[in-house]
Amino acid sequence: MGNADYVYPSSTAAGDGGECIHRAAIPPAQPFVKSLKNGLKETFFPDDPLRQFKNQPAGRKIILGLQYFFPVVEWGPRYNLGLLKSDLISGITIASLAIPQGISYAKLANLPPILGLYSSFIPPLIYAMMGSSKDLAVGTVAVASLLISSMLGAEVNPVQNPTLYLHLAFTATFFAGVFQASLGLLRLGFIVDFLSHATIVGFMAGAATVVCLQQLKGILGLTHFTHATDLVSVLRSVFSQVHQWRWESGVLGCCFLFFLLITRYFSKKKPKFFWISAMAPLTSVILGSLLVFLTHAEKHGVEVIGELKKGLNPVSITNLVFVSPYLSTAIKTGIITGVIALAEGIAVGRSFAMFKHYNIDGNKEMVAIGTMNIVGSCFSCYLTTGPFSRSAVNYNAGCKTAVSNVVMAIAVMLTLLFLTPLFHYTPLVVLSSIIISAMLGLIDYEAAIHLWKVDKFDFLVCVGAYAGVVFASVEIGLVIAVVISLLRLLLFVARPRTLVLGNLPNSTVYRNVEQYPNADHVPGILILEIDAPIYFANSSYLRERIIRWVDEEEDRIKASGESTLQYVVLDMSAVGNIDTSGISMFEEMKKILERRGLKIVLANPGAEVMKKLDKGKFIETLGHEWIYLTVAEAVAACNYMLHSCKPNPVTDEKAEPWNNV
Amino acid sequence: MGNADYVYPSSTAAGDGGECIHRAAIPPAQPFVKSLKNGLKETFFPDDPLRQFKNQPAGRKIILGLQYFFPVVEWGPRYNLGLLKSDLISGITIASLAIPQGISYAKLANLPPILGLYSSFIPPLIYAMMGSSKDLAVGTVAVASLLISSMLGAEVNPVQNPTLYLHLAFTATFFAGVFQASLGLLRLGFIVDFLSHATIVGFMAGAATVVCLQQLKGILGLTHFTHATDLVSVLRSVFSQVHQWRWESGVLGCCFLFFLLITRYFSKKKPKFFWISAMAPLTSVILGSLLVFLTHAEKHGVEVIGELKKGLNPVSITNLVFVSPYLSTAIKTGIITGVIALAEGIAVGRSFAMFKHYNIDGNKEMVAIGTMNIVGSCFSCYLTTGPFSRSAVNYNAGCKTAVSNVVMAIAVMLTLLFLTPLFHYTPLVVLSSIIISAMLGLIDYEAAIHLWKVDKFDFLVCVGAYAGVVFASVEIGLVIAVVISLLRLLLFVARPRTLVLGNLPNSTVYRNVEQYPNADHVPGILILEIDAPIYFANSSYLRERIIRWVDEEEDRIKASGESTLQYVVLDMSAVGNIDTSGISMFEEMKKILERRGLKIVLANPGAEVMKKLDKGKFIETLGHEWIYLTVAEAVAACNYMLHSCKPNPVTDEKAEPWNNV
Repeated sequence: MGNADYVYPSSTAAGDGGECIHRAAIPPAQPFVKSLKNGLKETFFPDDPLRQFKNQPAGRKIILGLQYFFPVVEWGPRYNLGLLKSDLISGITIASLAIPQGISYAKLANLPPILGLYSSFIPPLIYAMMGSSKDLAVGTVAVASLLISSMLGAEVNPVQNPTLYLHLAFTATFFAGVFQASLGLLRLGFIVDFLSHATIVGFMAGAATVVCLQQLKGILGLTHFTHATDLVSVLRSVFSQVHQWRWESGVLGCCFLFFLLITRYFSKKKPKFFWISAMAPLTSVILGSLLVFLTHAEKHGVEVIGELKKGLNPVSITNLVFVSPYLSTAIKTGIITGVIALAEGIAVGRSFAMFKHYNIDGNKEMVAIGTMNIVGSCFSCYLTTGPFSRSAVNYNAGCKTAVSNVVMAIAVMLTLLFLTPLFHYTPLVVLSSIIISAMLGLIDYEAAIHLWKVDKFDFLVCVGAYAGVVFASVEIGLVIAVVISLLRLLLFVARPRTLVLGNLPNSTVYRNVEQYPNADHVPGILILEIDAPIYFANSSYLRERIIRWVDEEEDRIKASGESTLQYVVLDMSAVGNIDTSGISMFEEMKKILERRGLKIVLANPGAEVMKKLDKGKFIETLGHEWIYLTVAEAVAACNYMLHSCKPNPVTDEKAEPWNNV
Repeated sequence: MGNADYVYPSSTAAGDGGECIHRAAIPPAQPFVKSLKNGLKETFFPDDPLRQFKNQPAGRKIILGLQYFFPVVEWGPRYNLGLLKSDLISGITIASLAIPQGISYAKLANLPPILGLYSSFIPPLIYAMMGSSKDLAVGTVAVASLLISSMLGAEVNPVQNPTLYLHLAFTATFFAGVFQASLGLLRLGFIVDFLSHATIVGFMAGAATVVCLQQLKGILGLTHFTHATDLVSVLRSVFSQVHQWRWESGVLGCCFLFFLLITRYFSKKKPKFFWISAMAPLTSVILGSLLVFLTHAEKHGVEVIGELKKGLNPVSITNLVFVSPYLSTAIKTGIITGVIALAEGIAVGRSFAMFKHYNIDGNKEMVAIGTMNIVGSCFSCYLTTGPFSRSAVNYNAGCKTAVSNVVMAIAVMLTLLFLTPLFHYTPLVVLSSIIISAMLGLIDYEAAIHLWKVDKFDFLVCVGAYAGVVFASVEIGLVIAVVISLLRLLLFVARPRTLVLGNLPNSTVYRNVEQYPNADHVPGILILEIDAPIYFANSSYLRERIIRWVDEEEDRIKASGESTLQYVVLDMSAVGNIDTSGISMFEEMKKILERRGLKIVLANPGAEVMKKLDKGKFIETLGHEWIYLTVAEAVAACNYMLHSCKPNPVTDEKAEPWNNV
């Protein structure tokens, strides 16, 4: 380093030619109410939904408001025959998937099969009016169905007490809807963001595994089966009754599963033929029913659906139970299934919106999905959302607007009115095959491998969720994943990294010496970067860690015989905020370091940090002249002190660069 | 801005004269095991306690190890008569405080009063050997005593079932000790850091209020009293029995309280006379006992302590109950009281260590405090730690080493052996006055005002803890405070700030335009700084927020008629880490912005972020040439593209600055 660096304030040392020194500024004070308002706005309205309402006449505001809550008002008037044609095709396609899937998932939830059809009639109509996604196909989902059966089933036996169980399912759906809609209305949509991608990958795969295991009952034609959902209990239950396995059922199940998987594989290879895999479930149902009808296999161990009531959804609003010892179970089930369903629905909506280049407002979607569940619970529907499989088929079938949901609802309505008797002979084993084939698509092992490669911690979250779901229960898996994810966030704050910076040759840039091995140490000055906000959770750690850096640096200097350490420059660029514990830590550290003859110099504290340091009187204690705008300026000032006049910066407090200039 | 700025790579635009462009480096890859080891070391051994053991012969290592766990081995040999003189004075002073306080707090915990004396005998001896603080005076504390009575008392009635209650108290103390020692041994000391300063201020003030309220029983001479600790229940209980208030008791209590407060005020004004306030409690006890003895006031509604058993601590190891329906209560009580006691002990130890310029190792202290409680629980002691009041007296009395604790223990031992009958006539109301006067010192309203001034959120935490303790219960207050504190951390991560940067005139420095109002916008380029790690919890928010910044910038440009926006430079200096959700967010955002004809440019991503972006293939997608070392270089490159050749950066991907140079 040339001698020119030690002249201060020189042109080369402090930025480009002729630059004057900037002081690290304390931002202008804001009144408390204004800063509180800003904070709340950033927290709850980051997307600023009211922006378009600004400076509009009252009439226009009402229309905009209507359009906000009922997007149909916006796109409805522009609807035309061309769009209808596309929506008709996609609507019929998803209906053909909705009918067998609906029945299957209702069985999975231990609810009457007809509920699956009811749930594909009313909720899609509501969503078509309120939803902002053009691709979401509404329906029930496997994971939520499984959760309902495991959570409600733990309290009420669905076989011994079917009416109570059914009513609790409606009540849970009602609370799920209320919870979803309130999250949206209270602008708390970001809660869903706490379910990270890694959590969802692990959780979905685990749930899919569990659902597949449950299907062993149907495939093997077992009559007794465990109520537990974990791997160990299920396998023990299955293998304890080997002599009761029914080969007829097993063979039929494997054949249909093979058929479904083949069609899915084919459609995946050639996306043009998406309709083959979309139609396969209905084809399986028709083939299976015909087969049973012709061979009378229902008398040889192949269970069938049996009687399905004809007619539209009965009103169930009077069935909601708000005064019951099981109310808390219903609320708990509602909240958990509601969150899971919401996470899936919003993730699916966002993915397809991204493909088609339009935007989804998470909070608005929550209100739509919540309303559809509240209304649904009054008309014999159970929990619905936007399942991935059905929405993907909808998208591939070329849907243009939410009208495809209306078409599906009409198709289901016609089925309910006229075609239910046709399902009498549908074998349960076909439904099991349909579920398994859908579930296998949810086990995204490639995503897990990607997580392992990119981020080991995310992989841990994913495996934790998977193992929790498979070996314990669905709720425990979810709790494990959320807790690990939160621990990660807390650990990030509790153990921030501190980095030693060095000077990149021939520049005024100071960077981490680990990332840039050619960065040079500056003699007599230790430059540290703190990489996180300084909060109570990390202030003790940072004090210890910084002092250890100083110890290590002094050891190094002793070994190498360089000039002694006199300054510790702290680069605060990455310190987003500080609290009172952090300020006390700085005061303590200043005392400790001064006792060792070292001076603290701060570089580039942000607005928030400067404000707090000022209010906490630390700037006064340290001296504003020891806070610089850039590391380069701080180092230049220290170098000037080190090489020109050499006063001890600590013992002689008066010897400040500003006084000498 | 001069035209010279647009020449690229020019000397003025990219740092000081003659600088060459540095590429943002991907740090050298580390094997997984090594980075895991480093991570664990930073998390659990930030103070590197094994450093002094390095390169030492085996014999020395054993001595160092002994010194680590028993600091007495280190300072014992250097002990001399001069030190003993100081320790003798301070030891006797704290003994005079310890005896009445011990009895009072044992009453507060609904335990036999003699336990307070036992607890000031064995634990200080253990601490003198193992503790590293020279100023900590060991003893029982009011808050932990209150917690024991409220938590154990909720399960077992101390009046109807005193033996079980006593045994559970020993068991809880045992578990508290085990928990404390394990935290220390497992290097999990940082858990205590999660109790922030604000939490402790609010919690302590709340607990002091509750303890004072409880003393109304003693002061007013009531026999029936509520078991609840909240303000409403206590006041209702007190005012529902106005006709049973005993004026004799009340007058006596107020007189002594006045005396204690006066002496405390005097000692505070003149620190030299610290011994006046230190001796005041014992004086009160002696005066009160004499008064009762002479006037036979115990027959006129003034309750007295009564018989105290003579003799040293009986062995209680056989009284620990490990098989009991109340075991879980004992464990819960142990853990909660253990954490609280630990937080107080360590905070006190650290404060005094700072005054005297020596260091306290938190983990080592935990092992010492834990061991002292484990051993204590085997010898009829209940939970002890280093109370603030007693340690402050110790410090003021000029203690030099932990020998002052030994002196206190010997004084208490002599009391136990010979002087217990003297306490027979001690009126309970004097003990109540002693507790109240000690508690009033814990209500640190000045600290609360300071919190309000510096950090509103910390103030909220403090008030939350206070209100929770006073209006609900001690545990609930603690939970509220910890939850609010954690919410703050999560909110920091979930809602990071994004700042618009501008160019400071005549420099290459780019800073937040709010903090530096003179910073200039760069035409055609939006420069944003992200102020937090990018994790699943904030990736959706950041996407929305950045796009809103772009919207707002475009609106501004439209209004002002400037040249169109073409580049978004993201300053990543403050982004400490990124996870897979964050990487997906970047990919999504890149697509969204490219569709609008905007190019993303990154500036100064840190080591960890570069590693993840590389593994997640985002660097490949974006192009490494669009990642710059500094904002100045990124802006210079964008300016060069904007003003020299003007290709569209998005539609013509080949037109990269690096190819053109």
